[in-house]
Amino acid sequence: MPKHTPDNPGAQPGGTLIIIGGHEAKEGRREILREVARRVRGGRLVIATVASHEPEGYFEGYQGGFEGLGVGDLVELYVEDRTEALGEDKLGLLDGATGVFFTGGDQLRITSQIGDTPLEARIRQVYEAGGVIAGTSAGASAMCETMLVKGHSKESYRIGDLAMAPGLGLIRGVIIDQHFAERGRMGRLLGAVAQNPRVLGIGIDEDTAIVVEGGHFRVIGSGAVYVADGAGITHSNIAEARRDEPLSLYDVRLHVLSAGDAFDLGKRKPVPAEALREGVPGD
Amino acid sequence: MPKHTPDNPGAQPGGTLIIIGGHEAKEGRREILREVARRVRGGRLVIATVASHEPEGYFEGYQGGFEGLGVGDLVELYVEDRTEALGEDKLGLLDGATGVFFTGGDQLRITSQIGDTPLEARIRQVYEAGGVIAGTSAGASAMCETMLVKGHSKESYRIGDLAMAPGLGLIRGVIIDQHFAERGRMGRLLGAVAQNPRVLGIGIDEDTAIVVEGGHFRVIGSGAVYVADGAGITHSNIAEARRDEPLSLYDVRLHVLSAGDAFDLGKRKPVPAEALREGVPGD
Repeated sequence: MPKHTPDNPGAQPGGTLIIIGGHEAKEGRREILREVARRVRGGRLVIATVASHEPEGYFEGYQGGFEGLGVGDLVELYVEDRTEALGEDKLGLLDGATGVFFTGGDQLRITSQIGDTPLEARIRQVYEAGGVIAGTSAGASAMCETMLVKGHSKESYRIGDLAMAPGLGLIRGVIIDQHFAERGRMGRLLGAVAQNPRVLGIGIDEDTAIVVEGGHFRVIGSGAVYVADGAGITHSNIAEARRDEPLSLYDVRLHVLSAGDAFDLGKRKPVPAEALREGVPGD
Repeated sequence: MPKHTPDNPGAQPGGTLIIIGGHEAKEGRREILREVARRVRGGRLVIATVASHEPEGYFEGYQGGFEGLGVGDLVELYVEDRTEALGEDKLGLLDGATGVFFTGGDQLRITSQIGDTPLEARIRQVYEAGGVIAGTSAGASAMCETMLVKGHSKESYRIGDLAMAPGLGLIRGVIIDQHFAERGRMGRLLGAVAQNPRVLGIGIDEDTAIVVEGGHFRVIGSGAVYVADGAGITHSNIAEARRDEPLSLYDVRLHVLSAGDAFDLGKRKPVPAEALREGVPGD
């Protein structure tokens, strides 16, 4: 299986990632669920409620949300503990699946319960076969190679804040944050980018998603997506300051994107969404 | 009186502006109040509670806050309505004043009650004579030539959001927002900058301030200051999109500054705070 290199950021070649900032509409136009359903192409969609400590109600919510959108069938994947993910029992749920949808909760539950298990390998196969992997809220964060697991909202970043952990690695070279404007998370996204400007910081609002294919993404939904590019940073106190000191960071490039905008992850540049539809040369 | 030109941003030559993001500490180290007191140099400090519809308690809070910091005397300036600001009665409060401190409330109350009155002219004289004008929260916003008066917090900017109004104009070429990280106001600051990238967007956290002298400012206090520079913006949908559409804005330059950082308003660049103390050539 080809490995990604830092020079080749973006999603692994294969299917589509739909990375959602949480609280996607489950009634009305349901633009994001509609996009997921379209990519499922009438096959099975697995609703993975693994992130939740108490999954009751999640699956039922999505049953309603996907009703009438043409998904072949909808099944729930939950694992009580890691033993279940290591065994064979749950694998059958993925038979015929052309999509997996990670719901919200705790991103560490996703990675600690299914990371490096046959179940995770099977999900990855769905993706590599051209399927769609969607994730909302915790399910969005977990897509990254290194994921944000904690960090204060509604305050500026302090040097000792923030915890990160290895994520599923379906998209590399980026850090995803969700509920972005709603929870005032610019501070913590900039803190993440400061740690290593190699990673692009991507903050996604509620009811908003990025659709990642090849080395590009498109924005859909009702809110905005913020891209913080640290490549040009000229000063950072992240390695010097005391833990309780606020961040100092000069010359971040920031893009605010909304529906109709697209972004080239390799070139780190917004591109017209129309160009993508005509097929932009890329990886 | 010399007028500012767009080529000469920053504070009007004269004294010092101390622009505070709200909720400055009134106990303990009181770094911001201490800085204000230092600039008052033992003279009178006028606590202008004009922004408040119900000023009870504001003045008393600052009496406690400034205790023991060496301010000569502290008086309260409040105007019930504009008639009082047009008359001569209140002018005496400013005799011997070397500082004026605008407290929080509603920035429109400041400008609508004292804008273009003898009282405002007298306050401006204090500043031009080398005094300090401080403002916190609404008092911070009111310093600008064009001030933010309204706009949603904790959501991304939509084209029809945001209301602006003419402010006191003590500092030009910038838009100030306050309670910045705490209220998740990056969206609305970017919306303001999108309207005319000529203005620098400056978002100030609580218990944090910028000390503006000449064409520079220094950061003091416990939080961060965000500077959004739109000069390099390559795309904006602000004039095209429908009112309820989210903003799209490419290539904003963003700086996160904290205590010890300084910024050159003319060059739009962070500068080492040490350089300022030795006297940076400027306007």
